This record gives sequence, C-alpha cells and structure tokens, in this order.
Amino acid sequence: MNPTNSPKLTTWLTVPEQSDFPIQNIPFGIFRSNASTPPRVGSRIGDTVIDIHALSTLGYLGNCPVPTEALAQDKLNAFFAMGRPAITALRNKISEIFRSDNAVLRDHEDHRLLICQQVNEVTMLMPVFIQDYTDFYSSMEHATNAGKMFRDPANALLPNWKHLPVGYHGRSSSIILSGTDIHRPKGQTKADDQDMPSFGPCKLLDFELEMAFITCKENKLGSSVSTSEAPDYIAGFVLFNDWSARDIQKWEYVPLGPFLSKNFASSISAWVVTLDALEPFQVASPKQDPPVLPYLQYKGDWNYNINLEVWIQPEKGESTRVTLSNFKYMYWNICQQLAHHTVNGCNIQVGDLYGSGTISGPDDTSYGSMLEITWRGSKPVKLKDGSERKFIQDSDTVILKGYAEKDGVRIGFGEVSTKVLPAI
Amino acid sequence: MNPTNSPKLTTWLTVPEQSDFPIQNIPFGIFRSNASTPPRVGSRIGDTVIDIHALSTLGYLGNCPVPTEALAQDKLNAFFAMGRPAITALRNKISEIFRSDNAVLRDHEDHRLLICQQVNEVTMLMPVFIQDYTDFYSSMEHATNAGKMFRDPANALLPNWKHLPVGYHGRSSSIILSGTDIHRPKGQTKADDQDMPSFGPCKLLDFELEMAFITCKENKLGSSVSTSEAPDYIAGFVLFNDWSARDIQKWEYVPLGPFLSKNFASSISAWVVTLDALEPFQVASPKQDPPVLPYLQYKGDWNYNINLEVWIQPEKGESTRVTLSNFKYMYWNICQQLAHHTVNGCNIQVGDLYGSGTISGPDDTSYGSMLEITWRGSKPVKLKDGSERKFIQDSDTVILKGYAEKDGVRIGFGEVSTKVLPAI
Repeated sequence: MNPTNSPKLTTWLTVPEQSDFPIQNIPFGIFRSNASTPPRVGSRIGDTVIDIHALSTLGYLGNCPVPTEALAQDKLNAFFAMGRPAITALRNKISEIFRSDNAVLRDHEDHRLLICQQVNEVTMLMPVFIQDYTDFYSSMEHATNAGKMFRDPANALLPNWKHLPVGYHGRSSSIILSGTDIHRPKGQTKADDQDMPSFGPCKLLDFELEMAFITCKENKLGSSVSTSEAPDYIAGFVLFNDWSARDIQKWEYVPLGPFLSKNFASSISAWVVTLDALEPFQVASPKQDPPVLPYLQYKGDWNYNINLEVWIQPEKGESTRVTLSNFKYMYWNICQQLAHHTVNGCNIQVGDLYGSGTISGPDDTSYGSMLEITWRGSKPVKLKDGSERKFIQDSDTVILKGYAEKDGVRIGFGEVSTKVLPAI
Repeated sequence: MNPTNSPKLTTWLTVPEQSDFPIQNIPFGIFRSNASTPPRVGSRIGDTVIDIHALSTLGYLGNCPVPTEALAQDKLNAFFAMGRPAITALRNKISEIFRSDNAVLRDHEDHRLLICQQVNEVTMLMPVFIQDYTDFYSSMEHATNAGKMFRDPANALLPNWKHLPVGYHGRSSSIILSGTDIHRPKGQTKADDQDMPSFGPCKLLDFELEMAFITCKENKLGSSVSTSEAPDYIAGFVLFNDWSARDIQKWEYVPLGPFLSKNFASSISAWVVTLDALEPFQVASPKQDPPVLPYLQYKGDWNYNINLEVWIQPEKGESTRVTLSNFKYMYWNICQQLAHHTVNGCNIQVGDLYGSGTISGPDDTSYGSMLEITWRGSKPVKLKDGSERKFIQDSDTVILKGYAEKDGVRIGFGEVSTKVLPAI
C-alpha cells in the first residue's frame, strides 16, 4: 500500500468526524481566496483549503517536479498535463507536510496562515478546462431499465451492449460547477396521443447519478491506449450530475442520440479525487459474459467501491435521500472505456471529462435517476416534508454525494449541488 | 448590395481565371510564412496570402476596430470574438486596400513585399480553436437514404425529422486541417450472418460532404438565440468532411448515436469564407411541410447556392469527380439550426463548429457519401484510371471543393483534401 493511504496516518490539521477529506484523500481543485486574489491550485484536508501555489513559493515543495507556474493557474490542466507521476509526487509531498509528525509548517505560524484557509472563506472554481466530454452508458441495470421504458421491455438490452462500452459525445460548454443554479430547459416534445409536437418547459426533468474521470495525458491522433496503459491517462474522479429532460429526450433521440435533452447543463463537484487516493477501494468488476474481444480484456481490479447518494432538498424543508447506489456496479470499467474510445485512433486530451453513465444498482433503492426510481412517474417518492416527486420540480436542489470507506478511512468527493430555477 | 460584393470590383493583385478567391471573397485563415515566424491572421486574393497583422502594424487598417494583438494569434478566435461588425469592418478595409483604384500599398514596394506572399510559400494552419462541435442531419435526401439503408425503407424518415433539425455532438479533438493524412480506423463490427462481433480495420470507410459554420458570439447559459439573431453569431463557413466508418457505425449507433465511427477524424478547409461574402448567393429554402413550431420560423432566404464536389484521387492517376451536390438542398437552414440548438438554454461559444450533415441532392449524381452514391456498395463508381470504388481505399485522397458563382463572380472555399493511409 502507498504509505499516503495508510489508515494510521494522521494530520496536525483538524479533521471533523465523517469528513470526506482526511489526510488520506488530498484532492486537487481551483479556489480563489477573495475577489481580488487570483485563482490558485489547492487541496483540502478537513475544512482547510491548502494553497499549493503558496506552498511552492514559500519553498515547501522541495524537489517535487511541479513548477510554480503550473500552480498559479485558473484550471488544473497545466498541472495535470505533467501526468500521473507528477500528480502522485505532489500528493505525496502534501501528505508529508501535513502529517502529525512533521512540525515544520505547523510551527511556522506566518506561513501556515498564508497557506491554510477555511473552506467557507474561499470560492471554489471550475477545476479543469474541458474541451471534449464523452458520456458512457456502462451500468447494465440502468441500460436495462432505460431500454424497458424507452424501447422494448422484452429486449431491453441491445445486442451491442455487452460487447462494447456504448458511449456518445456531450457538450462541454454547459458543464458547470456545483453551486451553479440552472433553469428548467424548454424544448420540443410530443405526447403519445398527439399527432404534432408542442413547445414549452420540460415536464420530466431528471438527474443522472454519475462519476466522471478526468484525463492527464494525451495520445497522438491515430494511436490507441490499451487497457493496461489507461490508468496513466487518468488523473482522478469527480461526481457528475448529467441533467436530463426525459420528455425532450424521448422525442429527439432517434436516430442520432440525446442532444437538447442533455446539453442544457451537467454539474460537477469541485475536487478531483486522485486515482492514488482511491487505490484501496478498487474491487473486481462484475463478470463479463459473453467474453469481450481482446482489446477490451484487462488485468487487475478496476471497479471502485464508492457509495453514491442523491438527495432532494425542496425550497423549504429538509432534504431526503432518494437513492443509495455504488460505483462498483459498473459493467464496463474505466480501462475498458478508454481503450474502446481510442481503439479507432481517437485522441484523448488533457482535461477531457468521461462520464460513467447513470449508475444504477439492482433495485429501486439504488437506481440513479428519477426515471428509474419512480418508474417513469408511476411510483412517486415521498420526501420528508410530505410532498411527492415523480421528477424534479422548480426550486428543488439536487445533491449528489459520494464516498468510499474502509478500515476507518473515508475518502469522499464532497458534493455536487444544483438548484433548479423555473424556465425563463 | 454591399459594395465589396459588386461584380465590377477589381484588384491590383493578380487573380487567376476560375480562382476561388477574387477580391469579392476575402476569407480569413491562419498561416505561417516559415518555421521560424509566428502564426498570423491572413486573408487571400488570387494566389496571394495577405498578412493582416503586417497590414495592421504598418498602419494600413486605419480606424478598423480590430486590435493588432487579435491578428498576432495562432487561431481566429480572438478576432472572431469581436463579432460580426468587426469581421465586416476588417473585410471592407482589406477590400479597399487591394482594389484597382487604390495605389497606396500597390506602389509601396517594401510594404507590399512584407504583406503579400505567395500561397505556395506559406503553411496554412487550423483556423480556429474548436471547443464544441455539433453535427446536424439537415439534408432530407441524405436522411431518407440513410433511413432506407440503416433502418426501414418504408419509413425512412423518422417522425421527428420534419419537426426539428436533428443534431448530435461530435468530438473536437480529432478535427484536422486539409492536407493532414488519416489512418484507416480499426474497430468492432458485426456481420449480419455472424453471432459475435469481430475486430479489425474498417472495411466501409466513407466521406461525408458537408459545410460547417463557425460562431463568433456567445450567449449566456440559460438564454436562447432566435432565428433572427442567429446571423449575428455566425462568422462564416468552411468545407467539412465528416469521415465515417459505416460498418463500425452500423454496430455501435443504437441507441445513443454514432461514436467511434466518426470521432477518428473530421477534416476542414483552411479559409473561413464570411457570411458577408456569401450574401449574394442566399436563396430560399425548400418549403417546409408540415409547418414548423414558431421558434423555428424565420424571415429571409437562408439557404446558399454553393456547388459542392467530391473528387477521389487514387495513389497513381487522375482524380475523378464522384458527386456534384449543392448546399441549397438543405431542408433546415443555419438560423433554424442555431435557434434549435439554444432553445433549451445551451450556450454557444466563439469558435464552435456546426456541421450541416451530409448534403445530398435528389439523385445519385448529387449524393454526399459513398454509402449513397454506390447504394451501400451495390453500384460501384468507376474512376478515370479504370478502377472501381464501393467505399474509400487505402492511399486514396478525397478532395471536397465548393464554390458559388453568379454574374461572373466565383466565391470559393478552396478544398479540403485528405489522404487515407492504411490502418496501423
């Protein structure tokens, strides 16, 4: 085990109980102290945001191979472009600086005040510039449920589904950070009992519970990345809510796939949790039957045991958890996804985002969308305030949370929280 | 008529007969004089490339509102971000400098040699940084042909097709400039008579004859662009070859659309021809029946009478024209496409690329893909060297050309030329 992941490791910083950010996490993000200071690369332990740029200028990073310029950026791309070894080195160095037995920064109050800030005193910003965004469709339970509802219940899973990780391209311009409100989209829909379509605010607004990985290495156009090379290309994960307008989707998506039903917004969490931090939570993928083609075969355990929750918070009143799923349910893993994506020579770039697709578990307590949880509205969920939901209503805030837990260590993602405002 | 479009206008530069670039064109692109000089914004008249950055530094642009910095870039984005009025102003100013009755630059040899270079002595570069790329599917003839071959001949056009401009997101990382070779993609396919898929080089490699527009204005996420506002958002057009692997496409595309069958490469031409230059060639769109929803209604003529050709050049021997189509065949026009794309609040950014979809005319002399021209390989085309093609072979070069012609003025796009190398 990488010593930075040891459950025995403690820090001289305060870490609240049940925090997503113990010293074993050390995620990366972009923050701004206040309106007049420039954005910086940061990390987080407990409720403390660490200014990594300040760590560098004050000489704490030693021979860590990440130059100060890469930390004085408004996106993580320049840092991530240095690749997995640099990401690992920086995470290791931060772990060393903040561990309980290292008094150097702890006892240098002036420096400590420059480097350590409270999370509620800073503003988090979009962590990466995303040029290309791909969404996969890799949960068998979700693909089966969607197939039953959108297509043929008797043949819900299409013939190609178990042979390749189905994916499609999404829109990167409308990917937004947790905390950014969205408006209910308008669009064209057609009711089953009508001959003609009509136009108006979406009636079936839905979340999609997803994880997404972000790349830190590029391949040349025309070359491919094998399943064994794939981990070198992946910096880490964020939580991802791929907002969906089910009524718009139903009318538009044949034959070229979802378009306006998806591209009005997708929300991501602020902290990129590294592959290194998630290493202890790797688990075997479900057995694939029929066997996959050689280019999709892989070695090792590349699923992740990460609990995933979705909460709905009405305008007034408590929030209610509407699902508890897990990233481990994925049929296709990240190595297979990246190998498939590049097998035709498609080029990956640094900062690309790759969504898992909706992550659904085996039953309606673990489904990853309202479409599935309420079975297209036929079984509404009851919220704590007594109201019911078939889909998402105006003024609802949808909150995704995710964390892995083992041997008393909890590595979490924080949350991605998005409030829905009425259509304009 | 904008005086810069007058057929009477002549230039003191030499313009070869049948050139795509008379003084009425004045497109924009990015070029480099040689390996040691930086990329610059340029234009072209005849076979002369005009260094617009040099025009600016030498004081020829007068009160034109485009700052010198925007012209010292390796992409057109900073210039285009100034919007349609600035693009129009710069084009008008260049027209003025080079017209026959303006002797100022013509008679200043030192400046002329700094500003004017021969096209075969410079290197053209990617004109824009493209973050998001959308491909529409707006030719009724193409959609009908594809529907007949991929789906149900009796119901080739799907129910939504005449109600909205169907579109989907593409991959921007693999958009390449004319002159860049590609490798035949590999991928997963399944033969109709086989139970299991297999892996190998694509057997049915195809071009798609398209035009694409590039945006020069952004809207805020959550807001929409109406059909009447759309032209303010569009800088101009390029030729676009949306390479397609038909056998990979057939197996992968249900239910979420084309993915690896498209994202290995898409090729664009080097010069962005402005909406201003194409104004004289605007023509009425085909009548839309049934009538479209109010947000898709528009005023004016927004199709373009642009002849489009595809040529195949084998490794040895002459090239053969395999189709003659026209951009005027589009059922959905660019104003409708942009209004639809943003009606849900999706945000447009400067430098986005929007493909038309394959442009097919009414019969097999005007189809925009080999799939249609050879009707899935059942009617091979004969090339001048005596060989036949069902689809594109290794070592073939595919060349798209496009030009509008009226009153003796020919406004062209040059070409987009791509050679296919064997699979790696």
